[in-house]
Order: sequence, then structure tokens, then C-alpha cells
Amino acid sequence: VQFRSTHGTNSGSSSFSIRSHTCGELRSTHVGEVVTLCGWVQYQRHGMFVILRDYSGLTQVLIPEDESRIKLKKTFCELPLESVVKVKGKVKRRPAGQENKEMPTGEIEVCAETAEVLNKSKKLPFEIKDFTKKAESLRMQYRYLDLRSSQMQYNLRLRSQIVMKIREYLTNIHGFVDVETPTLFKRTPGGAKEFLVPSREPGRFYCLPQSPQQFKQLLMVAGIDRYFQVARCYRDEGSKPDRQPEFTQVDIEMSFVNQAGIQALIEGLIQHFWPNELRSISTPFPIMTYEEAMSVFGVDKPDVRFGMQLVNISEVFSSIEVEFLRDIVHRPGGCVQAIRVPGGTRHLKNKDLESLKHLAKIHFNQTVNVVVLKDDGTWRSSIAKLLPDSAKQHLLQLTAAKPGDVLILASGLLQDVRSLLGKLRLQCVQLLEDKGMIVRDPSDFHFLWVVDFPLFLPKKEYPAELESAHHPFTAAHPEDLPLLLKEPHKVRSQHFDLVVNGCEVGGGSIRIHDASVQKFVLEKILKEDSSLLSHLLEALDSGAPPHGGIALGLDRLLSIIVGASSIRDVIAFPKSFRGHDLMSGAPDFISEDELRPYHVCVKWPVQEG
Amino acid sequence: VQFRSTHGTNSGSSSFSIRSHTCGELRSTHVGEVVTLCGWVQYQRHGMFVILRDYSGLTQVLIPEDESRIKLKKTFCELPLESVVKVKGKVKRRPAGQENKEMPTGEIEVCAETAEVLNKSKKLPFEIKDFTKKAESLRMQYRYLDLRSSQMQYNLRLRSQIVMKIREYLTNIHGFVDVETPTLFKRTPGGAKEFLVPSREPGRFYCLPQSPQQFKQLLMVAGIDRYFQVARCYRDEGSKPDRQPEFTQVDIEMSFVNQAGIQALIEGLIQHFWPNELRSISTPFPIMTYEEAMSVFGVDKPDVRFGMQLVNISEVFSSIEVEFLRDIVHRPGGCVQAIRVPGGTRHLKNKDLESLKHLAKIHFNQTVNVVVLKDDGTWRSSIAKLLPDSAKQHLLQLTAAKPGDVLILASGLLQDVRSLLGKLRLQCVQLLEDKGMIVRDPSDFHFLWVVDFPLFLPKKEYPAELESAHHPFTAAHPEDLPLLLKEPHKVRSQHFDLVVNGCEVGGGSIRIHDASVQKFVLEKILKEDSSLLSHLLEALDSGAPPHGGIALGLDRLLSIIVGASSIRDVIAFPKSFRGHDLMSGAPDFISEDELRPYHVCVKWPVQEG
Repeated sequence: VQFRSTHGTNSGSSSFSIRSHTCGELRSTHVGEVVTLCGWVQYQRHGMFVILRDYSGLTQVLIPEDESRIKLKKTFCELPLESVVKVKGKVKRRPAGQENKEMPTGEIEVCAETAEVLNKSKKLPFEIKDFTKKAESLRMQYRYLDLRSSQMQYNLRLRSQIVMKIREYLTNIHGFVDVETPTLFKRTPGGAKEFLVPSREPGRFYCLPQSPQQFKQLLMVAGIDRYFQVARCYRDEGSKPDRQPEFTQVDIEMSFVNQAGIQALIEGLIQHFWPNELRSISTPFPIMTYEEAMSVFGVDKPDVRFGMQLVNISEVFSSIEVEFLRDIVHRPGGCVQAIRVPGGTRHLKNKDLESLKHLAKIHFNQTVNVVVLKDDGTWRSSIAKLLPDSAKQHLLQLTAAKPGDVLILASGLLQDVRSLLGKLRLQCVQLLEDKGMIVRDPSDFHFLWVVDFPLFLPKKEYPAELESAHHPFTAAHPEDLPLLLKEPHKVRSQHFDLVVNGCEVGGGSIRIHDASVQKFVLEKILKEDSSLLSHLLEALDSGAPPHGGIALGLDRLLSIIVGASSIRDVIAFPKSFRGHDLMSGAPDFISEDELRPYHVCVKWPVQEG
Repeated sequence: VQFRSTHGTNSGSSSFSIRSHTCGELRSTHVGEVVTLCGWVQYQRHGMFVILRDYSGLTQVLIPEDESRIKLKKTFCELPLESVVKVKGKVKRRPAGQENKEMPTGEIEVCAETAEVLNKSKKLPFEIKDFTKKAESLRMQYRYLDLRSSQMQYNLRLRSQIVMKIREYLTNIHGFVDVETPTLFKRTPGGAKEFLVPSREPGRFYCLPQSPQQFKQLLMVAGIDRYFQVARCYRDEGSKPDRQPEFTQVDIEMSFVNQAGIQALIEGLIQHFWPNELRSISTPFPIMTYEEAMSVFGVDKPDVRFGMQLVNISEVFSSIEVEFLRDIVHRPGGCVQAIRVPGGTRHLKNKDLESLKHLAKIHFNQTVNVVVLKDDGTWRSSIAKLLPDSAKQHLLQLTAAKPGDVLILASGLLQDVRSLLGKLRLQCVQLLEDKGMIVRDPSDFHFLWVVDFPLFLPKKEYPAELESAHHPFTAAHPEDLPLLLKEPHKVRSQHFDLVVNGCEVGGGSIRIHDASVQKFVLEKILKEDSSLLSHLLEALDSGAPPHGGIALGLDRLLSIIVGASSIRDVIAFPKSFRGHDLMSGAPDFISEDELRPYHVCVKWPVQEG
């Protein structure tokens, strides 16, 4: 038995390392020190300087001119970029006038005494320079090179820091317990998007769960009181842009809490981790009902950084001659609504307006009317001549439209009109911003809660039947409890979403903690086989505390915080939109032999002749 | 848009809650305060007290005797145990003489003013009392009840705290980055124990990786410098006792580090999280070579809390008449070795000694000789009469045996003798401890490093071929590098294990960071298809820093710390040893319809007629 003597510094970024400092930390205060740096060759200059890089920054290394170091010079100058070297040398102040103010280490350079090539790089498929533009597929194939960029280093390191702050807030300040729940689980009723994992028992499969929903509720029944987990979740949605088959959520559940309690917890959480370098946010966040969000913004995740709200203009058409519009207005659930694009005439060209009409036609199968309010007060619109002046005035008054604005009108069933105008509102902003207008400030973060969602929605395929708007464990709004028996479609839920800048980044609810209510919802309303959830129903009968929780979509939230265009930019090794790992080639073919222990075989699709 | 007023306290265990305090925190300093408690009915006493429980403890609630509270009393007294209630009332000092010193809240009681039944419990399959013994299968089926026990609450909460301290140490003190790596990945060469996940593309499967090994190395190539992750790993070993199909490891990788650096990091880590309530440990940990561990303890994870070390007694037999032993000694690689059980004659009965012989026969197909050294100095042993007195003296001298001891002798090939005696050494201790002797102090934790493992081992099935002793990415010991080409079986590796009390709780190594060496190992020594790892080989050619890392088995480490007999006691929802979730019934049957999108079908085994 021997003992090892401890060595090196015992804290900081270079503890326990063969380097003494990182490439980003040397300053003029280090002048005279002998240091050891390890890093990548970023570039060589004048045959006498090598710029070394690591995650923390760059340091200039001076290669001495004296004869005895000729080999050192040869080694360095012939080394391909991105090779890894270790350099030992003395920190010197740069000669006057040669300081680089742009570079944090720009006051000094390291005069190399010895150097060692640790790894010689071959020619790489792209340069590791911040200005190099690369196709995303190339970035994904060589992800280990792509991650060397300062943006990706920033994204991954910020992610780590934020997750750490989330943990500190929950465990150290609020007494939460970090509990790991299984990912090899049982299929949930209706879990069509769950990945399957064959077991060694013929015909039996595990499922990779979409969230730890059942486990977090069972932990409340178990008296854990406050649970959280940075949980890996799985959802098989085939090919959907900007979705990942595995993703991460900050999963939280509390006993003895109400909606307001969960919301206050999350507001404190976001304040706690909010990066200092971003514009600050204020709490509490505004609360908007689902009904308000739908009626004003046409969507349940409104981007409230700008106006262009939906305006009901049905009354303009209720008594006039525009027949098709009057008919719509008088139909049950029918309406005419508008959004106003302020100053739209200057930026939206005919081509743009046509593209909006096209979008309405293609994606919503609806026709929209566009009114261009010219600077001289005249109207350019196909409906201009159908409307009497009084109606025009009424319309302008309701929409507060002025010369130079564009109005976009849609008519039809309320929910169709809302969805369409909600979408066109966002599309208009995109068009304006593509032309250089700044409508939404990207450094502004508008968080808000959307509450009072419907508990059930008609099924897409069989509108006579209901399905859960979110999941079957959501509790009803206490005021609407009497409706559950007879008019379940009218019941609001205790579900709430956290929305920022038009993106849903979290969803929470108070859960049903009464077994008989849960059974009623599953069997009588949703017509599900409740035996698949018998363990949960039994648990709710065994002393279940009232409880609720929330899940934050970590990938999405981070991508918004760092201003990334895709969640792939905040994930170390993401899959392509087809679910492929372009670096390793997963998913891959498996031989029949390797499938045998799992008692499955591939059912090859029949080739169409 | 509305705003919610923040409510409740904003830190501590009851922040954002409908309770004001937990059931474990009230003391005499709270007397006079009106409090709201929520908890489970632990028991009722004398029709006037209800004892409420939550994770933090118990509080006695007094039901007032006055007429106006008759309903309150009725509610409480008829309530089944484990029902959940909310009680509001004033904290009172208990009458003199009625304090309960055993109970942290024993100085006070809460005089109920109002109460609300939040959930009425049905009759449960077992009582939530610490002394209730339950079959493990029942505990697993009703895990949400089992977790209410104070031991399981302690285990899960300690786990959460330790994991948090690990994170703090790595990120806040040593600059590590927490990076999540994918669990839907590609099969690795030889990955026979990997679960498969069918994708929606016919014939293509993801794999659930056994560890993030490739990703952590790629992150070093990516310049992440210091990575860690509390990583979920998957290993399909069929039915093995005390293994879990999914388990958790603290996964660590560093660039520019050597073995000593990683070991020092881990020693600091364990010191940092070591629970105050346990006997302290000292660092640095002792280091033992693999060869030393095998020769002295017969195993590569020695329990050094006790002696009974292996002693080579071959020389006693090299020149004497015991023919079969002499032959063995003279065979290449043959030897005779012994372990001494001090005072063994008093505790080990004939039955016990027979059981040791039986174990040797059944599991190792070997015969052992037992020498009972009676108190009067005479020998009871089948070999006693075969040995001349001088040989007996020699044997006693080598083993330091005294009257009252038992010697266990084994002979054969060195490696077989070591394995057998290593096993019998542990078995002897178990027998002694079953009889009440304390040989190993359970409150003592002996950490040690085992180093200099062989890099390759002969394959079990084809001993002429070599396989990696750990994994193919392990670097060779620098001194043995010249042997790699011609005598790879003699090469020691830079792998090292962390062992505590006879259990391996971590394994680390310095990795190969040179593509040509990695390719040579994969193709020439291991005869693997290196194209499956082409992405890693390419990465090593792209500026790969020297790097190394370690993985700690979190479940195992925690089970040792809390003194649990199984890792299932430190996992919230473990699987049975057959890999079943006894609560939900996973894995479960999946219909053909549900399998269709994945292009697989079940291959039912043919029934034997």
C-alpha cells in the first residue's frame, strides 16, 4: 500500500491539472511568473507568435529567437491549426504599443521555454473561427468541432450554470428533494408517442415516458412533500422541426399548495437564475385567462411584446349589404374580426399581402380581406365599394386605424377566425422585421401566466367525444366542479401555462387527489381503461395530499434566453429533425442475431411494385 | 390581465404552502402562535389527541372538549389512520409532566380550532410504522406507502443532499460543466448488454448506452475541459440480484490531467459530501496495485477492514511426501496457499467448515483442506498425519497460526487459489459475524484505490484472444507502452478502481487520445470493426487533448453510506431482480397495432411439445 502526495492547486479551473493557468486568465499581475498552459493552436503570426486557445480565451505565446530554441520554433511553426500543445514559460509584459486591448490577456505574452505537442490535428472540415458559416448538417456531423465555437461554449456553460442555480433555489432555499424516477416504465393509456423498449421476456416492452407525471404524483402520496428533478423525457413525434426525441424538463411537484403558490415559486426561481447580463425581469408575472388570450391574441401563448390585437368588428356587418359577411355574422358562432398593422402600407407590399392571403388559404382554408388605408385616406380593398361610408367609419373607429395602416379582416366561426388572425398577426410581424423594422425587442422578456384552460377538448377525429386538454390528472377549477357531471366540456381546469415572448416554456396544474373523481374522469368522461392506472387510483385512496406541480421545458427556455434560433443550439449532441445522430449514425441497423434475445424481428415494409 | 399578490413565506420548507409549519418544527418558542399544519394521521390517543405526521416529524394535536367542537372531535376520532388532514390551532405548552422527551416537538401540542379532512385513507396493506416488517415484494408493490417510512425518507433525502454537494464541489469549486448527453444512441461494438429502442425507420434501432463514455471523450475533444453529469445508464443483464436495468453514475471527465489528479479530485469530492453524522474519513486514500490486491486478498476489491490475508505456503510442500500437493507446487503456476481464521475454533463448527468446503466444491470445483488448531496444540485435519513435525512448524510460522485458530488451505493454479481463498475469506467473516462476532465495523469506511490493472484479459470462451479488461478506450501504463506491440497481455493499464469496504464504487482511467493507438488497439488487438467508432477515431485526429475521467456508482455508494442491504433501498422506484416494476406491472404486453409504427413484431418462442 502506498500513498499519493496531493499535488497542484486544490480549487479553481486548473486544480489537479498539468497546466497552471487557463488560456484566458493571465494579466499583467502575473508578469514574472513561470506558467504552464495547455491549449489549441488558434493561429501563428510572423513565425514568432503562437496564439493558444482554450474555452476561457486566448494567450499569445512568444517563441524565442535564440539559436538553442530552433527546434521549438520549427515544431510550433509547422504545427497544423487546432493541434494541442503544452507550453511552459515566463509571463512577460508586451512591449509598449503592442498591447491588444480587444483581448483580455492582451497586456502580456508567455515567452516559451519548453513546449510539447500533445496532439497533432489533421486538416479539419471547417475552421474554428466565430465568423465561419457552416451548414447545420456539417456542424452536426462534426459536433465535437462545432462545440469549440465561443457561442456553443457559452450556451453549454450558461446551461450548466442556470441548472445549478435552479437546483440551489429548490433544494437549499425551499426544501425540495431531488428524486430520480425510472425511464423504463409502462405504457400509459393513449401514450402513442412513447418509445418502446423490448425486454427479454417475449412480448413484454418497457416504455420511455413522456414525463415523470405518475411518479411525481406517487412521490406526493409517499410524503416526499416537495420533489424536483431535471428529468430526461422522451417523445416520439416522428419528424417535427425543432423537436427532439429526448428533451429535458425541470420537473416540480409540491404537496399542500395551490396555483398561486406554484406560480410564486416559479417566479422566484426564474428571478434566481436570471443571467445578470440580460435585461432584468419583474415579478409577479401578469396573469391572463385562456379566454382572454384567445380573444385578444388568437392563441394560447401570446407574444405580448407588440399590439396588433384581434378586434371584433362583427357589428359593422350585422346590418349591411355585404351579404356573405352578414350571413356569417348571423350564423351561430360566426364573427368578423380584424387586426391592424400600424404603418403597414409603407412596408407591406402587394407580394407580402398576397403571401398572407396564401397562408390563410393553404393552412386554414380561409379567405381574408385586406384593407390598405392610403395616406390620403382612401381605401384600397375589394370590400371598399361594398361598404357604406358609415360602416367604414365604424370599422376605423373599432380598429383605431389611421391612414398608412393595413387592416386584415377574417370571417367565419369564432375559433377559426381567432386561430387564423393569431397566426397572421405573427406572420405580419415577421414580414415587417424581415424588412428591418424592429417590432419585438429581442432583449425584452415578457413572461406571463395563461390560466383557466378548458379541462377537456373535443377529439379531433370524433368531436362528440372529449379528451384531456393537457393530461387526465388535471383538477377542475373549483367553481366549475358542479359542471363536471353534466357539462364537462364547459369545465375550466386548474392548468396554467408559463409563456414568454410567444413561446410556451412551462405547464403546471393542481392534480386530482381524490380517487373517485380520478376514476370518474378516466372512465366516464375519457372512456379510458382505468385498470392501466390502477396503481395510481389505489395510491389516491391511501392518504393522498392535495398537490400540484409544473414542468419547465429547459431546452426551449434556454434557447430563448441565449437567443438561439433552434433548441439544437443549447443541446450538446442533438438529433436532426428526422431523429438522426449525424455524428454516429444512430439509429442504426441491428442484426437478427442481436434482436433474438428480445424476441422481436423486423417487419420490413412490402415494396410497392 | 391580472396580477397575483405574492403570498406566504418566501423561503423554507413551508414557503408557498397552505400550511404555516411542518409537523416536525414546532417548539416551546412557538407557544401562542396560531399555526396551520397538514399531515397524515399517525395515531389517535384517548379520543382527545391526534398525532399528525409528515416527513419532518410528529406533532400532537389536542381536540378541545367543548360542546361546540363536537363535530371536530367526531371527524377526527373516526378518521382512518394515514388520512390526510389540515388543522389550524394555537400552539400550547403541554401540561407539566406530560412532555415527551423522545419527541422533538414533545414540549408542545396544537389545540385544534378548525380541521379539514383532505383525503380519507382506505385500509392499507401494511402499517406505516418503523417496526413493521414487510416482505420486499409488498414494499415494491406499494412503494408509495413504503417510502413513507422514516428510513426511506432518510435515504432519499440524504441522496438528494449528497448529489447536491457533489454538484457544488464540481461546478462551484472546480469549474466543471454539467452537460447532458443523449440516451438514444448507437450500439457500441460488443454492446451485448444494451437495450434496443426501435425507431420509426424499418430495421433501425437506437440503443440505451451503458455509460456516456464516448460522449464524455468527445466533449474533451470539443474543448469543454471539465465535464460532469449525474448520468442515467442502462445495462440489460437479465436477472442479476442487486442489479438494476437503469442506474445512476456520477460521470466525470477532465482534460490535461493524470491519474493522480483524478484521484485527488475524487478524494476531495468524497470529503466534501461525507455526511457529518458518519465517522470521518481521511485522505489521501491508500493506493494498492492490482497485483498486491490479488495476492494478499485474492480479489481486486479488497475489504481491508480485517486481516485473514492469503499466505503462500508452497515452500512447506515443495520437498515433502504429500504427493498431490508436491505435484501442484511443482506445476507451472501451481501453489498452495492458506488463510488463517483467528480464534476460529471457538466459532466455526463442523457444519460451518463443511459449508466452506461445499462452497469451494460447488462454485470453484476445488477441494480445500481445513486445519483446526486445538487449544492443546494438537491438529485436527486430514493432512495432519501426512505432514512431518518440521513441516507443521514451518506452516505455523508462515501463517502465524496459534492454538484456537483455523487454517484453510487451497492448492492449484495461482489464479484459481486466489479467487477461491478470496471468496472463502469473506465467507468466513460472514459466518463469524452471523455468530455475533464483530469482525468488520459497519461504521468504518475504508476507501482505497486499486491501480495498475491489466489492460487486456484473455477472453473467457477463447483464451487465445484478448478483450479489454475495462473498455477499449483505456490508455496503457506509460512504462508498458513498449509491450503493446508484441506482448499486449503483459501491459498494465491506466485504469484504477475506487473501493470501499470490499465494494467497487468507481472506476476511472486515462484514455487513449491518439487516433493511431486507438485504431491499433481496436483492430489489431481486439479484432473489432473500428468503423463503428469512426466518429471517435476522427475526433482523436482533430486536436484531442490528453484526458481521463472516472464514474462513481451512485446507487452502490449510497447504499454503503446508509448501510442498506440492497441498492433498491436508495432508489425511489426500483425494479425487482427480474427487472419488473411491481407497482405498475412494467414491462407489459403491447398490441400488434401499437408495434406497427416501429416495424417490429414479437417472435414468440416455440412451445416445446
